[in-house]
Amino acid sequence: MGIIWGHLMAGIFFLLFSLYYSVLVSLALLRRQRLLKPPLPPREKRGHRWWQLVPVEGVAKVVFSLSLIFPELFYPPGTNRLMMVDWEDPQRPFVFKDEWQHVTMYGFFLLSGVVDVVSQACQARQNLKLERAAEALAFCVLVLLMVAHIENKGTLEIRGHVLLVVPAFLVGLVLIFEVWVPDQPLLWVLKTWMGLVLGSWLTQLSIVMYAPPSGQPWRGENPMDLAFLTIFFCWHLALGAALLATVYGVCSLWHRRFSFWRKAPGAKYQPCPTGEGSEELEKLRAGARRQDGGV
Amino acid sequence: MGIIWGHLMAGIFFLLFSLYYSVLVSLALLRRQRLLKPPLPPREKRGHRWWQLVPVEGVAKVVFSLSLIFPELFYPPGTNRLMMVDWEDPQRPFVFKDEWQHVTMYGFFLLSGVVDVVSQACQARQNLKLERAAEALAFCVLVLLMVAHIENKGTLEIRGHVLLVVPAFLVGLVLIFEVWVPDQPLLWVLKTWMGLVLGSWLTQLSIVMYAPPSGQPWRGENPMDLAFLTIFFCWHLALGAALLATVYGVCSLWHRRFSFWRKAPGAKYQPCPTGEGSEELEKLRAGARRQDGGV
Amino acid sequence: MGIIWGHLMAGIFFLLFSLYYSVLVSLALLRRQRLLKPPLPPREKRGHRWWQLVPVEGVAKVVFSLSLIFPELFYPPGTNRLMMVDWEDPQRPFVFKDEWQHVTMYGFFLLSGVVDVVSQACQARQNLKLERAAEALAFCVLVLLMVAHIENKGTLEIRGHVLLVVPAFLVGLVLIFEVWVPDQPLLWVLKTWMGLVLGSWLTQLSIVMYAPPSGQPWRGENPMDLAFLTIFFCWHLALGAALLATVYGVCSLWHRRFSFWRKAPGAKYQPCPTGEGSEELEKLRAGARRQDGGV
Amino acid sequence: MGIIWGHLMAGIFFLLFSLYYSVLVSLALLRRQRLLKPPLPPREKRGHRWWQLVPVEGVAKVVFSLSLIFPELFYPPGTNRLMMVDWEDPQRPFVFKDEWQHVTMYGFFLLSGVVDVVSQACQARQNLKLERAAEALAFCVLVLLMVAHIENKGTLEIRGHVLLVVPAFLVGLVLIFEVWVPDQPLLWVLKTWMGLVLGSWLTQLSIVMYAPPSGQPWRGENPMDLAFLTIFFCWHLALGAALLATVYGVCSLWHRRFSFWRKAPGAKYQPCPTGEGSEELEKLRAGARRQDGGV
Repeated sequence: MGIIWGHLMAGIFFLLFSLYYSVLVSLALLRRQRLLKPPLPPREKRGHRWWQLVPVEGVAKVVFSLSLIFPELFYPPGTNRLMMVDWEDPQRPFVFKDEWQHVTMYGFFLLSGVVDVVSQACQARQNLKLERAAEALAFCVLVLLMVAHIENKGTLEIRGHVLLVVPAFLVGLVLIFEVWVPDQPLLWVLKTWMGLVLGSWLTQLSIVMYAPPSGQPWRGENPMDLAFLTIFFCWHLALGAALLATVYGVCSLWHRRFSFWRKAPGAKYQPCPTGEGSEELEKLRAGARRQDGGV
Repeated sequence: MGIIWGHLMAGIFFLLFSLYYSVLVSLALLRRQRLLKPPLPPREKRGHRWWQLVPVEGVAKVVFSLSLIFPELFYPPGTNRLMMVDWEDPQRPFVFKDEWQHVTMYGFFLLSGVVDVVSQACQARQNLKLERAAEALAFCVLVLLMVAHIENKGTLEIRGHVLLVVPAFLVGLVLIFEVWVPDQPLLWVLKTWMGLVLGSWLTQLSIVMYAPPSGQPWRGENPMDLAFLTIFFCWHLALGAALLATVYGVCSLWHRRFSFWRKAPGAKYQPCPTGEGSEELEKLRAGARRQDGGV
Repeated sequence: MGIIWGHLMAGIFFLLFSLYYSVLVSLALLRRQRLLKPPLPPREKRGHRWWQLVPVEGVAKVVFSLSLIFPELFYPPGTNRLMMVDWEDPQRPFVFKDEWQHVTMYGFFLLSGVVDVVSQACQARQNLKLERAAEALAFCVLVLLMVAHIENKGTLEIRGHVLLVVPAFLVGLVLIFEVWVPDQPLLWVLKTWMGLVLGSWLTQLSIVMYAPPSGQPWRGENPMDLAFLTIFFCWHLALGAALLATVYGVCSLWHRRFSFWRKAPGAKYQPCPTGEGSEELEKLRAGARRQDGGV
Repeated sequence: MGIIWGHLMAGIFFLLFSLYYSVLVSLALLRRQRLLKPPLPPREKRGHRWWQLVPVEGVAKVVFSLSLIFPELFYPPGTNRLMMVDWEDPQRPFVFKDEWQHVTMYGFFLLSGVVDVVSQACQARQNLKLERAAEALAFCVLVLLMVAHIENKGTLEIRGHVLLVVPAFLVGLVLIFEVWVPDQPLLWVLKTWMGLVLGSWLTQLSIVMYAPPSGQPWRGENPMDLAFLTIFFCWHLALGAALLATVYGVCSLWHRRFSFWRKAPGAKYQPCPTGEGSEELEKLRAGARRQDGGV
């Protein structure tokens, strides 16, 4: 796969996921949910049709990761980069460094997807902490490999990737915190915002570095270009915040209309699982009320 | 704008804001307030004159930021630095690096001011957490851009700016904490003190580096000058503490006289919104009593 | 001792300890214990046979440490590296740098073992916090000495040791947290996982660096080899997680059968000390119930 | 003052203070106090003799600091290093860099002593948080200046001072935590231990670097010497722990005898201020009982 397509696809996947999360977070804030995603009811109480049992998010992670891993190893058709050592050379050197770094990165996101699927579809009780921990691990490995990835690259690529590490590290950090305190709306917002920045920055980077639209390549040896790289990153921070605010605004409009509708046909979209007795429900409601003054 | 005036004005603005905050913090400590700035009552209960609806602090941030951004781009009159790329040069190089870095820094303070105005004047309920988060973002972007700003500068400018990053980073950190725990008087004091240090150091720096009063420029290649830069910064730490203590002393005198006066004409300056029922009030008082042994 | 055997033995010891801990953690999670190792009853209530009084873990630490320290100083037989300064040379240079660094590292693990023994066998009441603090100190000293150890080594050894510092530092950090909050199952899991990574990585490193099985030494000057070092470390992260999951699975099977057995012969393996009155017991059970949704 | 005497005196002062604190901490642990130093009663309830009003610790800090500052500036007699700029040189260079760095460091400890005196003797109510904050500031400034101090020095001095920064930074960090949570016995122990390490390391350093007893100076360009510097620092860590354990043991013996004596003549050494009503006392006792299982 051309180097630009790999980076571009990864950027777009991050962006899609973050947009999905920004809708999720907006609705959770508007509905004053205690958790971002209410935990699934125990397995025997779920629906029994197969599409009710498929964990959509986990499957999406798996599909996205595989669609990044396969071209990395087998594109263009006919190539095979599965081997790591060139056995024919008497020195037996390692080969395909960049490809294996990418594959390892995507592999840990694949692992996170598998953990989601196993936790949600195969276990009697969903293990939310394990899911968050696997996601956090994927982002930490991303940071670790990125640090090794930028070795012996040009100044421009180093700087661009360092700025990529900042939001990736913050997302990883927030996910680690979420293992312990999953009920902090501010952490959801921070995570989603950083995810948006990560996605939009990676998208811009893959265009800027490997296919600049002006036809003029950026020059890493020029301090001007490096300075503007940081300036543009700061603008992406503002852009991500604006994007999140827009999604929140749209969801807010939709939510207002929907709560108007809801009054008529009854509790169609009840966010809390009402099947577990009124005591649990009361606690959830109290929690929601407490967060009333929150974000 | 001459490089010295930009730095000097920014330093003075920080100093003014920090002095205003040191008065605010002193009074909050003396009155044993639970929050630094008591949240506004819901919008329909506020006064309806326009000057009661204007959020002074947010407007000040906007005005200060704009008065720094405009000269950066359009001073001396007739120049225009709005363009970032020199399109006439066939290589299309970036231009006006320093100016755009400054504009981006000030732009995020402008954004924080706009968030204040929107939160206080346009929303039904003030969103304190969002205001603190926008302020924290402005300081974090300041740190990030400062790190890129000092590239390819002289040793003296690098050292001076690194020492500037220390208080800016601490203010940003405290603001991030304040998003979660807004009721910690110690954090208010730390924030204000670091703001005073930031302002006074930036003021001194702009004089020292660009217009030394002795006529003898500092020499970055001289270890003596670099060592004394750090020593002077430590003195600024003590100076900031002394300034804060002085303001506290003056406010304390004023507060003692004022509480004597207050006994006569009744609860004119009641810091807690008494219109919300006695239960809320009791809780606030209990909170204040708990903080009795505090700073 | 040959340099490879020292590293290999240390790696295997870490691996053994971590495997023992992964069994311990798995059982503690399955039994929903409040603490990883329930504190010993006061001394007068323990058994009076000598094998009931021997703290197995502490003794193992002491034996392992001594079996690493002695060969470091006295192997091959006839050598003596106890002296640190070569007194016969008129310049009196220091000698045996690496050996003394290793001895100091192992010495702090020896100290941790001695603290365990003293706390468990000699004091009236076990001091859990002191035990954790001594372990944390051993790992922090390990990190500090590792940083000095890699000076003036080749790039490959530096990189390999830096990646060793990551899990060692995390284990130390978790142990410091455990001094304050010993009842966090997530911290036990993280500690054990990092211990497994530390052990398996050290084992691989001692083979890779000092006796590569392919006969082709790794080349530190080759960026390919360095990149793959980091990739392999990430795979060790996944390997450690898989190992831990396997141990948990086996323990889970064993625990299910055992709880079936337990129903017949009564409370043979009661994890809580039932001799201290039903009030204490009730509290423990409530704690366990609260952790029900945990890892 | 000879450079060795300045360092040696500072080291001995730190060591004395830390030994005093280790006695204080040992007694506080043995008596199960809730705070390391019980706060003074309000001023009007204290004794009225002058020696009951003098805050010993604060005065000691002031005296120690002054006895370090004066020789730095005026020793040997007849010299005067108060001026910072050589006005006679047309280039007006800065002079006496090292001396002013030392004076600034000691000056912040002087400030901490003054804050102690003011808080304890001049205010109606002792301000414990302010005292801790001033101490923390002194250690943070120590770290900041140390980083500037080691510029353009030899490798050996740099390494020695870097290892000095580690315990200084930890003491500063613990003091910052103590501003918020003064009732953590583990933090007292950590602070005292790090203080002992700081003192003993500074003492050794001043001997090693400026007057080695063997007559053979250490060689910074020799990796062996640098490696052993770190090894010796780790031994100082163990030495500090041993010193603290010894002091605790001696205090424990003394305390056992003293509590035997106390039974006879009544509550002579009551650590809690009993004059404030039995309610306060009960709370303190409950706190002490809760800490029963602590260090």
